[in-house]
Amino acid sequence: MSLKTPEEYVQSLKDLKIRAYVNGERIESVADHPAIAPHINTVAKTYQLAHQPEHADVMTATSHLTGEQIHRYTHIFHSADDLVKKIQMLRLLGQITGTCFQRCVGLDALNALYAATYDIDAGEGTGYHERFRAYLTRVQSDDLMLAGAMTDPKGHRALRPGQQEDPDQFVRVVERRDDGVVIRGAKLHNTGGINSHEILVMPGTGLKEEERDYAIACAVPAGADGVVFIFGRQSNDSRKLEGGCDIGNPRFGVVGGEAMVVFDDVFVPHDQVFLNGETSYCGSLVNYFATWHRANYGGCKGGNADVLIGATAKMTKVLGTEKNAVVRDKLTEMIHLNETTYASAIGASAMGYPLPCGAYMVDPMMANTVKQNITRNTYQIGRLSHDLAGGFLATMPGERSFENPEIAEYVEKYSRANPEYGAKDRIKLGRYIENMTSVTTLVEAMHGAGSPQAQRIVMLGQADIDKKIYMAEQVIDGDDDVEGLPLPGKSVSE
Amino acid sequence: MSLKTPEEYVQSLKDLKIRAYVNGERIESVADHPAIAPHINTVAKTYQLAHQPEHADVMTATSHLTGEQIHRYTHIFHSADDLVKKIQMLRLLGQITGTCFQRCVGLDALNALYAATYDIDAGEGTGYHERFRAYLTRVQSDDLMLAGAMTDPKGHRALRPGQQEDPDQFVRVVERRDDGVVIRGAKLHNTGGINSHEILVMPGTGLKEEERDYAIACAVPAGADGVVFIFGRQSNDSRKLEGGCDIGNPRFGVVGGEAMVVFDDVFVPHDQVFLNGETSYCGSLVNYFATWHRANYGGCKGGNADVLIGATAKMTKVLGTEKNAVVRDKLTEMIHLNETTYASAIGASAMGYPLPCGAYMVDPMMANTVKQNITRNTYQIGRLSHDLAGGFLATMPGERSFENPEIAEYVEKYSRANPEYGAKDRIKLGRYIENMTSVTTLVEAMHGAGSPQAQRIVMLGQADIDKKIYMAEQVIDGDDDVEGLPLPGKSVSE
Amino acid sequence: MSLKTPEEYVQSLKDLKIRAYVNGERIESVADHPAIAPHINTVAKTYQLAHQPEHADVMTATSHLTGEQIHRYTHIFHSADDLVKKIQMLRLLGQITGTCFQRCVGLDALNALYAATYDIDAGEGTGYHERFRAYLTRVQSDDLMLAGAMTDPKGHRALRPGQQEDPDQFVRVVERRDDGVVIRGAKLHNTGGINSHEILVMPGTGLKEEERDYAIACAVPAGADGVVFIFGRQSNDSRKLEGGCDIGNPRFGVVGGEAMVVFDDVFVPHDQVFLNGETSYCGSLVNYFATWHRANYGGCKGGNADVLIGATAKMTKVLGTEKNAVVRDKLTEMIHLNETTYASAIGASAMGYPLPCGAYMVDPMMANTVKQNITRNTYQIGRLSHDLAGGFLATMPGERSFENPEIAEYVEKYSRANPEYGAKDRIKLGRYIENMTSVTTLVEAMHGAGSPQAQRIVMLGQADIDKKIYMAEQVIDGDDDVEGLPLPGKSVSE
Amino acid sequence: MSLKTPEEYVQSLKDLKIRAYVNGERIESVADHPAIAPHINTVAKTYQLAHQPEHADVMTATSHLTGEQIHRYTHIFHSADDLVKKIQMLRLLGQITGTCFQRCVGLDALNALYAATYDIDAGEGTGYHERFRAYLTRVQSDDLMLAGAMTDPKGHRALRPGQQEDPDQFVRVVERRDDGVVIRGAKLHNTGGINSHEILVMPGTGLKEEERDYAIACAVPAGADGVVFIFGRQSNDSRKLEGGCDIGNPRFGVVGGEAMVVFDDVFVPHDQVFLNGETSYCGSLVNYFATWHRANYGGCKGGNADVLIGATAKMTKVLGTEKNAVVRDKLTEMIHLNETTYASAIGASAMGYPLPCGAYMVDPMMANTVKQNITRNTYQIGRLSHDLAGGFLATMPGERSFENPEIAEYVEKYSRANPEYGAKDRIKLGRYIENMTSVTTLVEAMHGAGSPQAQRIVMLGQADIDKKIYMAEQVIDGDDDVEGLPLPGKSVSE
Repeated sequence: MSLKTPEEYVQSLKDLKIRAYVNGERIESVADHPAIAPHINTVAKTYQLAHQPEHADVMTATSHLTGEQIHRYTHIFHSADDLVKKIQMLRLLGQITGTCFQRCVGLDALNALYAATYDIDAGEGTGYHERFRAYLTRVQSDDLMLAGAMTDPKGHRALRPGQQEDPDQFVRVVERRDDGVVIRGAKLHNTGGINSHEILVMPGTGLKEEERDYAIACAVPAGADGVVFIFGRQSNDSRKLEGGCDIGNPRFGVVGGEAMVVFDDVFVPHDQVFLNGETSYCGSLVNYFATWHRANYGGCKGGNADVLIGATAKMTKVLGTEKNAVVRDKLTEMIHLNETTYASAIGASAMGYPLPCGAYMVDPMMANTVKQNITRNTYQIGRLSHDLAGGFLATMPGERSFENPEIAEYVEKYSRANPEYGAKDRIKLGRYIENMTSVTTLVEAMHGAGSPQAQRIVMLGQADIDKKIYMAEQVIDGDDDVEGLPLPGKSVSE
Repeated sequence: MSLKTPEEYVQSLKDLKIRAYVNGERIESVADHPAIAPHINTVAKTYQLAHQPEHADVMTATSHLTGEQIHRYTHIFHSADDLVKKIQMLRLLGQITGTCFQRCVGLDALNALYAATYDIDAGEGTGYHERFRAYLTRVQSDDLMLAGAMTDPKGHRALRPGQQEDPDQFVRVVERRDDGVVIRGAKLHNTGGINSHEILVMPGTGLKEEERDYAIACAVPAGADGVVFIFGRQSNDSRKLEGGCDIGNPRFGVVGGEAMVVFDDVFVPHDQVFLNGETSYCGSLVNYFATWHRANYGGCKGGNADVLIGATAKMTKVLGTEKNAVVRDKLTEMIHLNETTYASAIGASAMGYPLPCGAYMVDPMMANTVKQNITRNTYQIGRLSHDLAGGFLATMPGERSFENPEIAEYVEKYSRANPEYGAKDRIKLGRYIENMTSVTTLVEAMHGAGSPQAQRIVMLGQADIDKKIYMAEQVIDGDDDVEGLPLPGKSVSE
Repeated sequence: MSLKTPEEYVQSLKDLKIRAYVNGERIESVADHPAIAPHINTVAKTYQLAHQPEHADVMTATSHLTGEQIHRYTHIFHSADDLVKKIQMLRLLGQITGTCFQRCVGLDALNALYAATYDIDAGEGTGYHERFRAYLTRVQSDDLMLAGAMTDPKGHRALRPGQQEDPDQFVRVVERRDDGVVIRGAKLHNTGGINSHEILVMPGTGLKEEERDYAIACAVPAGADGVVFIFGRQSNDSRKLEGGCDIGNPRFGVVGGEAMVVFDDVFVPHDQVFLNGETSYCGSLVNYFATWHRANYGGCKGGNADVLIGATAKMTKVLGTEKNAVVRDKLTEMIHLNETTYASAIGASAMGYPLPCGAYMVDPMMANTVKQNITRNTYQIGRLSHDLAGGFLATMPGERSFENPEIAEYVEKYSRANPEYGAKDRIKLGRYIENMTSVTTLVEAMHGAGSPQAQRIVMLGQADIDKKIYMAEQVIDGDDDVEGLPLPGKSVSE
Repeated sequence: MSLKTPEEYVQSLKDLKIRAYVNGERIESVADHPAIAPHINTVAKTYQLAHQPEHADVMTATSHLTGEQIHRYTHIFHSADDLVKKIQMLRLLGQITGTCFQRCVGLDALNALYAATYDIDAGEGTGYHERFRAYLTRVQSDDLMLAGAMTDPKGHRALRPGQQEDPDQFVRVVERRDDGVVIRGAKLHNTGGINSHEILVMPGTGLKEEERDYAIACAVPAGADGVVFIFGRQSNDSRKLEGGCDIGNPRFGVVGGEAMVVFDDVFVPHDQVFLNGETSYCGSLVNYFATWHRANYGGCKGGNADVLIGATAKMTKVLGTEKNAVVRDKLTEMIHLNETTYASAIGASAMGYPLPCGAYMVDPMMANTVKQNITRNTYQIGRLSHDLAGGFLATMPGERSFENPEIAEYVEKYSRANPEYGAKDRIKLGRYIENMTSVTTLVEAMHGAGSPQAQRIVMLGQADIDKKIYMAEQVIDGDDDVEGLPLPGKSVSE
């Protein structure tokens, strides 16, 4: 059976000995650490739902390699419907967890490597694709949680990889052996890596011929020697450890539990290497990945925003403002902003088309508009949530205040609004809204899958301005009109 | 053969004797009047493209009634693919004409009546649907240009149809005969009616039981006795009659040549009546129509904006600013705004689902986001076009200045920018931009297919706020977590 | 007495024989031409109000040269209060005319030349300032209507004046005589020039040393030999000549009646020349003018928007929607957008400071924010007006329809809404809104006083980013704290 | 001498024994607690700068009561210049502290009570104003730090004070004694109260006659019996206690250290009571306060945003993107948004006018636009900061990672960008940006001085829609035109 249960997933993490640091301290087991548990619990939902018959259609797929039922998170998209189902899966998971469920980077990386290895073989006569299919078969049958690692530290932004003072600012091959390669560097913002089984390392940018040491794509077990995870800090992270009504997200994570993952001279055997020095394919590999990934945001953030809208709507009931016409109009605006990006993501998916390898690519223009709107709408949705949730969001007393009998009665009495709801209900709701509109959350929406400017460059490139100029020229000056109509232009010129 | 040629369409209008007034004067033949010719020429493109093999896929369909190839503009949507193709057809036509091609109202009205008659029969045991299928068969085989008529004058907006001082402010049945009904009233903003073959009259709002005289849907030949078209004025309309470089749109119309169509006690025989007194179905009929129609705007306005973007991009070449980074960024923004609504319209279509009658309905939430964004993005796109096109747009000299030798040289010399382009090239381009961002154009984008508030009411209704509240409650307080994970919420509460 | 009456102003235009072309035809007298009359009527209001005691405070000032009461439109700003009063005068005139009253360019040009001539003399030992004061004395005592002429055709935008294929794309000196200079070229978008007494010609850009022939500022009588006015076309301009309810603005103009003014080898005697070859002062002359002028938009457009808001509010009464909560919220948004720019313009004026010559300059940063917001808010205000005014704006029947008895009753009956208002009342209101949100109006708001990018360049320059960086460094790392406080940074580092 | 030194201020807090709870624990001395010290340090700056000669003009004023030099924070505004200077003082303090300096609420409350007591006496023949002047004299001579307390918990928002289930949801008089009154209730979001000397309690809303127990305004010493401060939690608050590069604001607070202040049957002697039962004056008291206070945001947030813009600009240098044209354009946008609200605040102040008592009120319309724009622009400025600062903001490693030698080298190496800057420099900057755009900060900008809707109600009320309608009617139909001009309207109607 190729569908892990959530319990199996958690156990597999316990079995895996990775080198991870949280808050500066090395931890024994990620699954036993309260800072990471919420993120693991979120991923566990992806495993859990795949076993629920009512969600089987969106959560699972049939492997094109083996014909077996597999988790959709290990599936190569083979139709527009596959792409649409992915977005639906994302929205569903977003609605259930209210946050990032971390497996999308790995999924899109699988697909990107599937496509890129095919292209390289076709162009260079290499054998990467077969090797990758073998790898993919294992991933599918083991239902692995994969993290993708793409964003290099990048050093000085005005300099290319080869020009940096520190050559390790982009992951590179530092040694080539008969049985594999040794890589050095780091990847930042690594989503889910700390609770993954394997990491798919890919170049983070197009490369020039002389930068071939940076042209490396490979799979690295999370527990491999030399791999070090350093957990990043999130807004209000330490409240997880405090507990009580201040936590915000008592069950699930905030964003994807991003970490810095360091590759300190990590050996990768050849059968896990999928691109090695073919610089001219790096641009399209990055592009494959980014295009798929940008469409996702209409799904996952759509689901997350559903929860935020729900939390905000509930807050209006707690306040007693839920019937006000302007309040309802603002809720409507939140809905509108959210559904706009979801609709576009569905559009991008429905217009999917096959790549040479057979995998289906989303419409690039549409996918980029999705992400571009996310970098705006997420902030507007947050703003409207703050507007409706009220100023108390900024000044709520904390859990400890309720524990001190000298003031417990005060905070209970004066933190209530509509007396049907208790003070802690209001605070828990408020803290959830706070976390879901925190800087960590907003910045992920801004920069995940590429910064806004990255999308704009693609959009301008995709737009074919010359063709549009031609259209305008034809509309104004074209001449294939029906004979005999007294058209203004003609009545004059003839 | 059921596909008219553009020439046949024009001839059929000449054969049709309708009562039409332009600029206050009764005109003999709409096809011979220069004010209407551009609108006819636009519709003619819908006929022309259906004959071009490269466009057959989007421009034609197979009738589910007869199995024959028909124009897509007379087709009942029978799959999500049909809905997607409609949007693609709209964008194509928008790119070729740069304006409204007028047949969408009729198409969506056909589909709405197809669905509503089915529902009424199912609920009331009437025989409207069969009657409508017979009508539809004729429409398809004759490839008719249909106009839909929906918006009543409405009188005082705070009063319902039956409460108006003048009961004719909504179209109503004033006499019921054995062989048919007599209707009175008017419909406003009637797109394409003045150059159509028939008009599909529908109620414009949900109705209460006591308002049954207002519950009437029927087909009325454009030349029927008592039907009067009064052509509306558009921004800069008289320039069409002046000719020269000031026209703006020398070939095609601005928006849809909207007219006030009066029904001055028009007799409609029973076989053209498709709803008659069934008030409780009026709301869903209106809703069917509006939902389909709102998605369209992502297609047609998408195509129109392509032309506007092209015209603006060309203007930057005329000015010599085309390489400026900020100029390019603004073009990118125009593209982004435009593609957002197109992507959503495709999404709404791809998520189409079958109604009881078998016709496919677009996703209502998505369709409404499309139209809502159109009411904003169209203005922003226009604004950016003005920004890039420069102040000359507001002060250009006119054609007559070029005709007077005393000043012809001046206007030629000082209206040029990049000397590769002549003064009139620049002015023609500028006037096109002016017309495509004129009040007539903008207001159509604002109010066509329903005013912004109409969409918001639907969106809020579709959003299922209670379900979202439940999601939030579950994310915060749910308890189906993997056992044994040290989750923050649990570590406290247990 | 130095305050002309409106009648005297009109008569003075009749006495003035200028060479003007409207719609390609040379006209005998601008004051007798219906296309220009509304613009003249608008300027006449500036003269009329100066005689009304209740407006004397804002409409008049005391000459610093003669001590006499003069029109504020000929006054050199000598205090922050003068600057504030200017903005108040603009708003008042905007409220009374609903459009551009044209004298601001001349006013700001007077001040800019006053300041620049002072600077040149101080730097170069020339005698321009004394010459200019003499000129100014005459302007004040004759209460002249002055137009400023600044914007050159500019040719290819990527090339400088001296690099153009046609050297006349910027106004230049083509001959230097003992008694004066001969200038050639044209100025575009010339506001009010066609109904002015004199034109203040200024360079439109900073210049390099080798471009000294382009460095010319002077006063040219509107009727001087070689001066040719070619009236630009405006949206819906020909409706003025049609009359009836379609006019839009029956009394006043749309924007400033902009014309192309050609200088076909115009001789200017030395006593009217105020800058001649001093290239290094052109930048600051342009800058003086633009800074003053940009603040104005908060006043004049504020008044214009008051009228548009009023027209829109009245339209909601005509429709019967005036009590709707969302309608009221949208009116509020129009008000908010409008008052934001007015408040900033007052702020810019109140922060006025003296230049070396004694004239008061507005705060440059604030003045530029005013104009930048105008390029956005004007469009938003128009959009909201369209939203509230309804779709009828795009399809209204015209005056001629009411004149034809065959249809007069129809258009009257079906163009009404709230029966308290007649059809023509609604249409007149609608046409006014149409004109006040037309492309001509919007583009003027976009590009008048400089395109948006021009303001941004100034704002970035004014912002002193390095100082802000220093502030941030101090806030984070500074150390002048009160001793003994357990500050977080200290408790760690010490 | 009436200007306290910062040291005297800190000492005075130590001398003051207040009952305060931080994180649920009662604390001995607010000045010795690291959670409150940054807020105290911020207020200390207000005292420090008043002693610096270069800032004396904006930081101090002359008492109209005693003629002595006093701190501007205890001054009654007596001219438009006073109002402008206040805004300038706010911007200065904002630039130096980067956060809220807390004394504005007290200042505006002083002025509001000054005006309201005058009004009550004038209307009711009471003696509040004299009493208040005596109080004010002491405040000025002691240079007290006053907190204003206005926002009641409010309970169910759809119910009025007297209708609440819990009558204490609005502060009220529960006992009237010969020597004073006893009040009960709480005020929320109390800025600076926890480190203030006295609290000015005022009603938070207009009241009806039957709600007279809620009509109470008085001064309460922070250390009075029954006064309890419960410190609110802020985003990332516990990092202050952790220290290191994660703090964000090592020196100053985030917003104003807001607390819930409980009045548990607090006795207030008559000489500290300034309104007692006069319900009909509560609305205008609230309004006085809110109007002054709303204008402030253009000053304080302007200064704060200067620091944020500086931090962001520095971050672009750390990244090496500072020369990119689009990056510079985004910085410009931040500047523009910020300067817009500052300019409006200056405008509101410059248009100040005297109230009956002699105090100067800001222009209400302008003041409300300031705050309304703050509720939008602050979010946009934050968004742009995130855009430019990069994704690292969401995933930065923490201080502890640098302390563990196993990973210290990694985090140093891979957290750098431009090698001229160290990893910790980048992180400190990032954490500062995080805090300054955190939910606590944003929500304060949203709801401080009243929620957005509160401003809109005032704006609509101030706008005089009827007068605008009249203007529109006049512009369209007025008839006081210059005789003899061939105006379009006339040529038809005559």
